[in-house]
Amino acid sequence: MSTYQNDTILKMINGEQTDRFPVWLMRQAGRILPEYRAIRSSLSGFKELVETPELAAEVTIQPVDILGVDAAIIFSDILVVPEAMGLPYQMIEKKGPWFENVIANEADLKLVSDKIDVADRLGYVVDAIKCTKKELNNRVPLIGFAGAPWTIFCYMTEGQGSKTFSKAKRILYSNPALAHQLLDQITNVTIEYLKLQIEAGADIIQVFDSWAGVLDQSTYSEFGTKYVSRICEAINEVPVTVFAKGAYYAREELATLDCQTIGLDWNMDVEESRRIIGMDKTLQGNLDPCVLYSDFKSIERKTKNLLNSFGNRRHIANLGHGVYPDTDPEKVKCFIETVKAHSIN
Amino acid sequence: MSTYQNDTILKMINGEQTDRFPVWLMRQAGRILPEYRAIRSSLSGFKELVETPELAAEVTIQPVDILGVDAAIIFSDILVVPEAMGLPYQMIEKKGPWFENVIANEADLKLVSDKIDVADRLGYVVDAIKCTKKELNNRVPLIGFAGAPWTIFCYMTEGQGSKTFSKAKRILYSNPALAHQLLDQITNVTIEYLKLQIEAGADIIQVFDSWAGVLDQSTYSEFGTKYVSRICEAINEVPVTVFAKGAYYAREELATLDCQTIGLDWNMDVEESRRIIGMDKTLQGNLDPCVLYSDFKSIERKTKNLLNSFGNRRHIANLGHGVYPDTDPEKVKCFIETVKAHSIN
Repeated sequence: MSTYQNDTILKMINGEQTDRFPVWLMRQAGRILPEYRAIRSSLSGFKELVETPELAAEVTIQPVDILGVDAAIIFSDILVVPEAMGLPYQMIEKKGPWFENVIANEADLKLVSDKIDVADRLGYVVDAIKCTKKELNNRVPLIGFAGAPWTIFCYMTEGQGSKTFSKAKRILYSNPALAHQLLDQITNVTIEYLKLQIEAGADIIQVFDSWAGVLDQSTYSEFGTKYVSRICEAINEVPVTVFAKGAYYAREELATLDCQTIGLDWNMDVEESRRIIGMDKTLQGNLDPCVLYSDFKSIERKTKNLLNSFGNRRHIANLGHGVYPDTDPEKVKCFIETVKAHSIN
Repeated sequence: MSTYQNDTILKMINGEQTDRFPVWLMRQAGRILPEYRAIRSSLSGFKELVETPELAAEVTIQPVDILGVDAAIIFSDILVVPEAMGLPYQMIEKKGPWFENVIANEADLKLVSDKIDVADRLGYVVDAIKCTKKELNNRVPLIGFAGAPWTIFCYMTEGQGSKTFSKAKRILYSNPALAHQLLDQITNVTIEYLKLQIEAGADIIQVFDSWAGVLDQSTYSEFGTKYVSRICEAINEVPVTVFAKGAYYAREELATLDCQTIGLDWNMDVEESRRIIGMDKTLQGNLDPCVLYSDFKSIERKTKNLLNSFGNRRHIANLGHGVYPDTDPEKVKCFIETVKAHSIN
């Protein structure tokens, strides 16, 4: 039995009846909020915020108070996992993440390990979750997360973002054994990390496969869903959401995963996705984040259209990607309030 | 009646019987060839090569001689159109294109015009096509090209590449009238430019909508296919190919365009695409360019799988994206020769 003041999202995930669709936003804890920027500007950088549990907890809770979302998501980064495994990263302002060392061949595997003390190396995330849970005081559930192994593999081999991820893909095609070895290690650490998040209080787990869309169907099946599937099978304590951005071609396969919710990006038609994925999963998404650049009337209209496409079926309202940092928080509120005002018949 | 020594690609586009599938590669004229890099390194930069007709012709023909492709594609850049309209660009080594001025609002529209002498401003491309045609001496047909209006709009508003194209999309959502005005101007210039390419000898026209995939279905219909459709209707002299990368959701609509060929990226399943697009179009693509990082046996195997998926239907073999610069030309040849050795039953 749920102890939350607002447990709409958990009910929806479990297929129980709710009066309305729950709503939250990917990247809701972040630069869209002036209250976040105030904390962030007092620090040396993004990583200091990620690594300071009290402050990470504070920015995690901000959107619950300010925007009225139905869930908090722990403020952190998917790149803490490769760092814990042995590849430290920097977050460079206006450029994104950057790794000094990358994995290009078998010899480089000595740089990383899955035989690490995850609880020690990622204790700051565990502490941030504990701190958040205490401060949230059962108002809404807390989402924990990790990157999917393929996406983490991309960063560990490219060392940064890429348009083509051709270095990462080169390894898949030229040395699949090396790829599987590294993906296996990432998966091991990720499962352990997610279990620690759950022990600390995470109520839902989301797995982000941000670069799924650069692979074709059979390659993603071999190097992507294979490892996401292992994570889903290992996590039984709480519901799991899988968001494989761009992997429209994989929806049929994603539907077979042992998870409760499938995230949709804004390219994926909701009704088509429901037909492909079936009735056994909750769907999540998928307004184009750029719709929040429109005027209030247009946002309301497009949000209502989206809600109508959900019908009366299992769906969590969200954007189809993280909210962009230059979005007006009032526009975000307009989206959230439109969702909350809409009744499920 | 065709006068080409090798007119396989034209026959295939026209739905005539051929013994084998024609093959060429997007970006075949470029950095994969040492012969290209030798010419390029003797010059001040990429733009000098684009703007020097004799040299542009030489690198256009290189892959015909060296790789044995069934068509040449004029060496140029889609960004010559925004430059001709009033926004000059630089091509920055290892970073890509960069525009000093961009369009952000109505007032910025004074920076660009469609009332320009296209033949004068883009005469160097016309001359390069004439020069290429002479040197090619009817060995294979020549493909001319332009960017689709939405993709050109992206560069004119972002000023460079982007992960999200959120500045370009912000205009679509916040000021659709401005977006349509600029897209209309780009379309006008593009049609005039393509007609000049055809007069100079281009045998096939390809329209590249490289950033189609960042829009959702209804937004791409309103701001993307609308203008591609105008181009297709205006170009009747030669066959037209439309390649809308990432726009898997738009295949049904693309099938209604007045064009002969639809390009597929490597995410799009060939058989599914055939079902969606129907039998009235030639399809083109779509091996993942990263497959060319594999060993020769794997390339041959994956190419054969692809060819089998074409069946005996209208298809031009190509990659699903431009060939990546660090690809071994011998691997490219392996792909091309595997296609050429495969008979259509």
